[in-house]
Amino acid sequence: MARWEPNARERLVLAALDLFAGQGYDNTTVAEIASRAGLTKTTFFRHFSDKREVLFAGQEVHSRLLADGVAAAPDSATPLEVVAAALDALTASFTAEHRERAPRLLAVIASNPELQERATFKRAALAAALISALAERGVPDLTASLAADLGARALDRAYDRWIEPSNQQELTELAREELQALRTAAMALG
Amino acid sequence: MARWEPNARERLVLAALDLFAGQGYDNTTVAEIASRAGLTKTTFFRHFSDKREVLFAGQEVHSRLLADGVAAAPDSATPLEVVAAALDALTASFTAEHRERAPRLLAVIASNPELQERATFKRAALAAALISALAERGVPDLTASLAADLGARALDRAYDRWIEPSNQQELTELAREELQALRTAAMALG
Repeated sequence: MARWEPNARERLVLAALDLFAGQGYDNTTVAEIASRAGLTKTTFFRHFSDKREVLFAGQEVHSRLLADGVAAAPDSATPLEVVAAALDALTASFTAEHRERAPRLLAVIASNPELQERATFKRAALAAALISALAERGVPDLTASLAADLGARALDRAYDRWIEPSNQQELTELAREELQALRTAAMALG
Repeated sequence: MARWEPNARERLVLAALDLFAGQGYDNTTVAEIASRAGLTKTTFFRHFSDKREVLFAGQEVHSRLLADGVAAAPDSATPLEVVAAALDALTASFTAEHRERAPRLLAVIASNPELQERATFKRAALAAALISALAERGVPDLTASLAADLGARALDRAYDRWIEPSNQQELTELAREELQALRTAAMALG
């Protein structure tokens, strides 16, 4: 099996994470990131609109993956089965490289309020994308919101477990487990 | 009944909303807000850390109100009953003045991505406060997250209905209705 070779985009992400972790997010310039990756500023801006977006690389496609997963679910699927299909589609895009760099990524985000706000906003955007996709299937608004909230929560919980060094499971499997656990808890709310 | 008289803090909020709506958020300075409210910049900064915070006035106490509501719920309350008590405590703090200014507030926030991120972050902070307060009562993590998500969603939905000009109900009543509807939907998820 060939060794994994990062492309320009990946190199920029890794260079940025190294610099952010080493000297701080605020103290790092786009020029430094590009230079460390062996690329130019022009190349940087072909891939990312600004320094902040390097940290959220790939997330712009997450909403689309969720929507694709929803669209692929059979007509007979319940709202939660549709959400499960969406999470399957999304979580399949998370690679071993994501997992490896996750602790540094989260540490950088935690160090800066602006980045925390951005991360929270991206999370809310995913939930909103899921609600829209469910509504398009004719799921009533209330149920769509509820199912999307369970999906977003399952994803959060699965991700937290996935990035623990001792965890050996796949993110897709963890997300399914968490969604199932939330479903059981929902029915037991009383 | 005495006419409602805004205090300095209220005057700053109203002046800021007028200016943001009239000339745009980015084009408005703290000096202009203070001047329009008949106050000084020094007074402004006694009440708010920056221009952005004027729009989120009062929200710093929301997490505390939620926590107070949770603490006041009887030991025998189910997690959702605890959430209902928290929403009661929070929604009681929303006045007719909040309702009147809500459309302008939302329009200003919608006009600026940075403000949208801030609003989303504040919403997430409320959900997190609810999870912590439930966890302190010994509610298991999974159930606490789920109940908090239902509470946050109920509050969003109730607020959207409350600010419709045709709506005559109180926010507290709307939040109870929405939480009950979400509870029913949760048990029917299948």
